[in-house]
Amino acid sequence: MSKVKVAINGYGTIGKRVADAVQMQKDMEIVGISKTKPNFEAFVALDKGYQVYAPADKLKGMETGGVDASGTIEDMIQTADIVVDCTPGGFGDENKALYTKAGVKAIWQGGEEHELAGCSFNADANYEEALGRDFVRVVSCNTTGLCRVIYPLDQEFGIKKVRVTLMRRAADPNDVKKGPINAIVPSPIKLPSHHGPDVKSVIPHINITSTAVVLSTTLMHLHSLNIEMDKQCTAEEVADLLAAQSRIRFIGQGITSTAEIMELGKDLGRPRGDMWENCIWEQSVTIDEGELYFFQGIHQESDVIPENVDAIRAMMELESNGARSIEKTNKAMGI
Amino acid sequence: MSKVKVAINGYGTIGKRVADAVQMQKDMEIVGISKTKPNFEAFVALDKGYQVYAPADKLKGMETGGVDASGTIEDMIQTADIVVDCTPGGFGDENKALYTKAGVKAIWQGGEEHELAGCSFNADANYEEALGRDFVRVVSCNTTGLCRVIYPLDQEFGIKKVRVTLMRRAADPNDVKKGPINAIVPSPIKLPSHHGPDVKSVIPHINITSTAVVLSTTLMHLHSLNIEMDKQCTAEEVADLLAAQSRIRFIGQGITSTAEIMELGKDLGRPRGDMWENCIWEQSVTIDEGELYFFQGIHQESDVIPENVDAIRAMMELESNGARSIEKTNKAMGI
Repeated sequence: MSKVKVAINGYGTIGKRVADAVQMQKDMEIVGISKTKPNFEAFVALDKGYQVYAPADKLKGMETGGVDASGTIEDMIQTADIVVDCTPGGFGDENKALYTKAGVKAIWQGGEEHELAGCSFNADANYEEALGRDFVRVVSCNTTGLCRVIYPLDQEFGIKKVRVTLMRRAADPNDVKKGPINAIVPSPIKLPSHHGPDVKSVIPHINITSTAVVLSTTLMHLHSLNIEMDKQCTAEEVADLLAAQSRIRFIGQGITSTAEIMELGKDLGRPRGDMWENCIWEQSVTIDEGELYFFQGIHQESDVIPENVDAIRAMMELESNGARSIEKTNKAMGI
Repeated sequence: MSKVKVAINGYGTIGKRVADAVQMQKDMEIVGISKTKPNFEAFVALDKGYQVYAPADKLKGMETGGVDASGTIEDMIQTADIVVDCTPGGFGDENKALYTKAGVKAIWQGGEEHELAGCSFNADANYEEALGRDFVRVVSCNTTGLCRVIYPLDQEFGIKKVRVTLMRRAADPNDVKKGPINAIVPSPIKLPSHHGPDVKSVIPHINITSTAVVLSTTLMHLHSLNIEMDKQCTAEEVADLLAAQSRIRFIGQGITSTAEIMELGKDLGRPRGDMWENCIWEQSVTIDEGELYFFQGIHQESDVIPENVDAIRAMMELESNGARSIEKTNKAMGI
């Protein structure tokens, strides 16, 4: 069987990780990645054997910078069956025209609106909805993290109401331009935040209200969740259910913070120290007055990576069953 | 009328602020403060004209360090009608024996347990309970901030359930020994946190569940609140009620973070730039599906200061009416 040809448009935090995860799979391969600047990431991409492409007006700059580009982004798209668009949010419409013209499928990330793709994706919750589709949006890291816990809890116990406070990292670790370095920033100030509706773009019937703040940290997001469920259940039943999910990792063993979770990712030998799973503190899973509470850490740079791989598999109909795709992705990545 | 004589045992973050606030009042005065080390705070205290006392075994060190101490802590207590104990948490029992022996009234801070004093105090919620008492505990900064909003909302609309995520600063700005500098620390991991029960030590019938984390910031705590009320009401009605409370300040005008709130405190000319009031983002006050949400910033170094002054007034029966004490305190401090 020939492998599905995947191009990565935008080789930043998410793009470079998706490229490596795709390359690990048996049924897909990277045919090219795009960069706009000849920086260290472009050189590492070449070292890894990826064909590097660039916007037409940046080719000269790439050459000057010593990066041997294989052609334009349009050239790259021609070689692909599907493009994973990891460009910064806001270029959606422009790029959609490009992909449509080339007759290539495309995946966007959570920075774009649901309407652009018409299908917002989480592998656990709605894999089948993406089967054969031309355009899919893999929801953001926070929404992915929420869907991964909300979907199984709703299936098992029925969800009446989710209330969540999202504590977001200020910037990714390599981003030296953003703050805050010493403040708490309600974001948005006007409540509720967009994260609740974004979960509903994947699981429409969920009743969820979210609030969010931005913090002086770069390592992970943290969610403080409160969930009312239809069926009464114990903390042990919830813990057993969540622990059985392949993209949820229970943490304990002296881990007291997001910093130690990321240290664990490095100690485990994960590529870039990534922690692809929701990290739930087992000890935090509590039923108080009939309502569920727990804390989970979400690694903003990497939790959507396996979801992108599954989205490719669904859209290219490499696998009709979501659970089997998840199993393949996990096995290849080592989750 | 002779002024009530107040001694401050422990002249750190809270103690030095209580001293200055007491000194501003017409009906009370500082007769001494205690220090254990001859550091800059001791020198500033002398400059302000406070008598500085020290534990007997530290007097020599004070002298060597150039601080002219007036005597031991036992000596200081002899001169006072009431002691405000701002020593680090955990010395409660020991100090209580000292105060009892000297026949002096005492106030502890939120670091001590409710049982030590038998009365946990918030000026709005239970001033009358402290009238004439020998021992009172002024609840912590976070609990004070919660009581200030919960009490009036409960009086006006009836509170069914409070759910709150407390995002706590890592350390005070002058504390260079604590972290985290880049992490989110669920604290406690085991839920719910003690803050809910602490609110109940002041307003026993409130149904409240809290979760808390510690963050990489020094400036303020931030609370993300969700409140279900008995009576239906609009966001405007809630905003009007909260805006009418003298120790709640509504913020807007381009303030997007805790850092800008503290900048405002400095620009207003507040002593030490303190922000004694709960700072609620007006725009955040929202009713969503019948439930109230809002964000408030709590200045951990200073919000309990006016409460300590009111506690003195209640215990010494300088004023039988809580609202009138609050008015006197606020006027003298410039709230």
